[in-house]
Amino acid sequence: MTELTVSALAEMVQGRLIGDGTRVIRGIGDLRQAQPDRVGFVRDERWADAAKGTQAGALLTAAELETDAVQILVADVDYAFLVIASHFHPKPQAVEHMVHGSAVVHPEAVLEEPVQIGANAVVGRAKIGAGTVVMANATIGDDVTLGRDCVLYPQVTIYDQVTIGDRFVAHGGCVIGSDGFGYKPEGGKWHKVPQLGGVRIGDDVELGASTVIDRGAVNDTVIHEGCKLDNLCHIAHNVELGRHTIMAAGAMVAGSTKVGEYNIWGGQAACAGHLTIAPHVHLGGGTSLLRSIREPGEYIGYPPIEKKAWVRLQKQIVDFPAMRADWKKAQEEQE
Amino acid sequence: MTELTVSALAEMVQGRLIGDGTRVIRGIGDLRQAQPDRVGFVRDERWADAAKGTQAGALLTAAELETDAVQILVADVDYAFLVIASHFHPKPQAVEHMVHGSAVVHPEAVLEEPVQIGANAVVGRAKIGAGTVVMANATIGDDVTLGRDCVLYPQVTIYDQVTIGDRFVAHGGCVIGSDGFGYKPEGGKWHKVPQLGGVRIGDDVELGASTVIDRGAVNDTVIHEGCKLDNLCHIAHNVELGRHTIMAAGAMVAGSTKVGEYNIWGGQAACAGHLTIAPHVHLGGGTSLLRSIREPGEYIGYPPIEKKAWVRLQKQIVDFPAMRADWKKAQEEQE
Amino acid sequence: MTELTVSALAEMVQGRLIGDGTRVIRGIGDLRQAQPDRVGFVRDERWADAAKGTQAGALLTAAELETDAVQILVADVDYAFLVIASHFHPKPQAVEHMVHGSAVVHPEAVLEEPVQIGANAVVGRAKIGAGTVVMANATIGDDVTLGRDCVLYPQVTIYDQVTIGDRFVAHGGCVIGSDGFGYKPEGGKWHKVPQLGGVRIGDDVELGASTVIDRGAVNDTVIHEGCKLDNLCHIAHNVELGRHTIMAAGAMVAGSTKVGEYNIWGGQAACAGHLTIAPHVHLGGGTSLLRSIREPGEYIGYPPIEKKAWVRLQKQIVDFPAMRADWKKAQEEQE
Repeated sequence: MTELTVSALAEMVQGRLIGDGTRVIRGIGDLRQAQPDRVGFVRDERWADAAKGTQAGALLTAAELETDAVQILVADVDYAFLVIASHFHPKPQAVEHMVHGSAVVHPEAVLEEPVQIGANAVVGRAKIGAGTVVMANATIGDDVTLGRDCVLYPQVTIYDQVTIGDRFVAHGGCVIGSDGFGYKPEGGKWHKVPQLGGVRIGDDVELGASTVIDRGAVNDTVIHEGCKLDNLCHIAHNVELGRHTIMAAGAMVAGSTKVGEYNIWGGQAACAGHLTIAPHVHLGGGTSLLRSIREPGEYIGYPPIEKKAWVRLQKQIVDFPAMRADWKKAQEEQE
Repeated sequence: MTELTVSALAEMVQGRLIGDGTRVIRGIGDLRQAQPDRVGFVRDERWADAAKGTQAGALLTAAELETDAVQILVADVDYAFLVIASHFHPKPQAVEHMVHGSAVVHPEAVLEEPVQIGANAVVGRAKIGAGTVVMANATIGDDVTLGRDCVLYPQVTIYDQVTIGDRFVAHGGCVIGSDGFGYKPEGGKWHKVPQLGGVRIGDDVELGASTVIDRGAVNDTVIHEGCKLDNLCHIAHNVELGRHTIMAAGAMVAGSTKVGEYNIWGGQAACAGHLTIAPHVHLGGGTSLLRSIREPGEYIGYPPIEKKAWVRLQKQIVDFPAMRADWKKAQEEQE
Repeated sequence: MTELTVSALAEMVQGRLIGDGTRVIRGIGDLRQAQPDRVGFVRDERWADAAKGTQAGALLTAAELETDAVQILVADVDYAFLVIASHFHPKPQAVEHMVHGSAVVHPEAVLEEPVQIGANAVVGRAKIGAGTVVMANATIGDDVTLGRDCVLYPQVTIYDQVTIGDRFVAHGGCVIGSDGFGYKPEGGKWHKVPQLGGVRIGDDVELGASTVIDRGAVNDTVIHEGCKLDNLCHIAHNVELGRHTIMAAGAMVAGSTKVGEYNIWGGQAACAGHLTIAPHVHLGGGTSLLRSIREPGEYIGYPPIEKKAWVRLQKQIVDFPAMRADWKKAQEEQE
């Protein structure tokens, strides 16, 4: 956390300064609670009142406010927040090379200096790019390639034969490369089908805590660049996730399904196996998808339909019992 | 497991003894399988038959039974069970100070003796209260405060900047403080929004295995005292869970939602972000909530409605195809 | 990975060889990408075209193909795949006894040689059968029995009092024996009910990554032989899973429910507690079961109904708004 003057902050986000630029800022604060060494953000008109009385040393805002605080006017407050927050809270990064004495690293592992390997972490015959941080108690298998500037939080597990690009982030408890779920019934038993494929993950992918990516059955499971998965998601064997697809917590993709680029899935959204989902499909939370979707659009439900139709249906369905009562009565009258 | 006479047991639960109080009891048993050194429980009238033939050394019961076994009459069998079970199977507790030789503890960590730190656990610059047990392979970050008499089971991960009260229990694989799921779209990519907040957890909270609590975006994610979450639950950034709220396995709360106190959520119940849920709301298993709930009550469905209405609707909806057939026929006749 | 001639492969799967049997095969490949030292599989007639142009050194096929490649004709291609894949990619197995220097093993643990205990793994007072592999950072408690030829992948946690048969496989982050979710409300608080039971798991069970099996409340939670659970599944206390039952990712069984043998549950399928599910029940993905099922069959929905009826209902329900509009109009005309 490096301190900055308000002027320097304004310059960083290409904002217009209104007021004294010499004040020193040491971090970001909520408007209602911020101290004078914090910068606050007015991300919504409804926050204007809170901005009036704020103690924050400076305010980022899209429109000039009635306030005594120093203001930095920017076109996009959210983006300015992101830039400033990244300054004060950068993601973990290996600057000096450090392998903790308790970590167990395979003698043939190739660590491109500097990397950081945390306490009690275990690293197999892997290749790890410069800048990457592997935190405590994480485990990396053999024949793994992990790119530059990646972060593995504690308890992450990477199995053998996994290839991952740069700037990858995996949160605590993630598992990457576990066996796909494949069994063949024979003689009243389920016989394990060995899972021979690996996992390939592109650049700039982030996985939430306890999310699981299975390895492929013959070829690889593939997560293309820029995908972001929230906590407790499941990606089955042979799945392919298109670029910049994003899924909220608990989303699950069954085996061999191809999800197009720029999909946005709500929490617990799930789909059956062997489907093809078009690019730019938005699935509402809780959606269970049993068939392929060919057209971009917003879908929701179980099974999902186009969102507007679903909302109307759910609003109207409460009338069903009354309709049914009339129908029953009419039937009785006919008899 | 300390042995007790039946008399001592009766006293412990303020029960009335019928029969010989000198027998020694060493644990709790199922009525149908218990040995003579076990105490059994008749929690349901339907178990009266099993009670007749039991080998158990004593029986806890709310009503006098026809049996040769020694009986302890109590007003509330479930509560008596809880008291006796807590005697024979107390939760893990640090009585003597013990830091395993393989654990890695930051030199500035403050351990209020006695605490137990298990094998290969990793503890950062944290403050841990007396009586707390940190089991094998758990990981605790920096700027963490963990209260007294807590239990972290193996593989639990606590990120930096997490504050937890007394008597906290986290089961295996829990992750607390992982980044909230926040990205801003810009130029065809998702840009990470740094998650600056922490997590605050009150006293007497218990989290099931592999449950995840994300840190806040700017302020903290807050779990108030007495909350109990089952396995594989997800609490997103900025969520606030009211006191004594309880959620079954797989429940998920999306970002910035405020859940009132004394909520009871069934398994896989989930809700969208930025909602407000009243106190004393019961959500049925599998419910997907897309709007705020202002009134206490029982709700279920996708989207949820009042429970009685949902049950009636689901019972009647099977008539829909017949109604539709009649409607189609009527349409054809009109043409 | 031991290399084999095509003749030896043909013999291994009792297949009929067409072409040169002397070529050496070193692994399995996808038809479209395979090198000449790989054997490919024609599992579907639609792959015949790909088979024509393949570079693979040999092809397993059920029917003779038009191709220059050497062919091995077999009755069941999937089964032949399984046999050959198991040859080239055998599951991890302890052949030589090896306890990593960084592992922490209780002095009273009984390891039947050979077993492999990985780096930074922690093993309590457990009994582990020959051939078993415990990978890095896994944790095993006290009074645990783990059979022969088992595999615990990294970060697996086994609590105390768990008994597991032979050939068990648990993927990364699995938790076995965590407390069941039992609380008694008293005086405005939830009081923990100690969970006294353990977990018993039969032979040939496999658990996916981050799947959780809770211990029983008084008796044991029981997973019978041959069950296969995918990632992120939840089995609550006192549940009994019948033999050879299989559940896809995210499936959840609430407390005390008995699931019959040979059940097949889709992803995120879930059921309430204290139910009885017949053998040979198939639940569709996303099903939420609130009542017992007495008859084998295919069910789906929330709440589930017989599958064919559900499919018909979902297809027809889109007509509901039009039906309702007509009903509204008729009502208005009557007034």
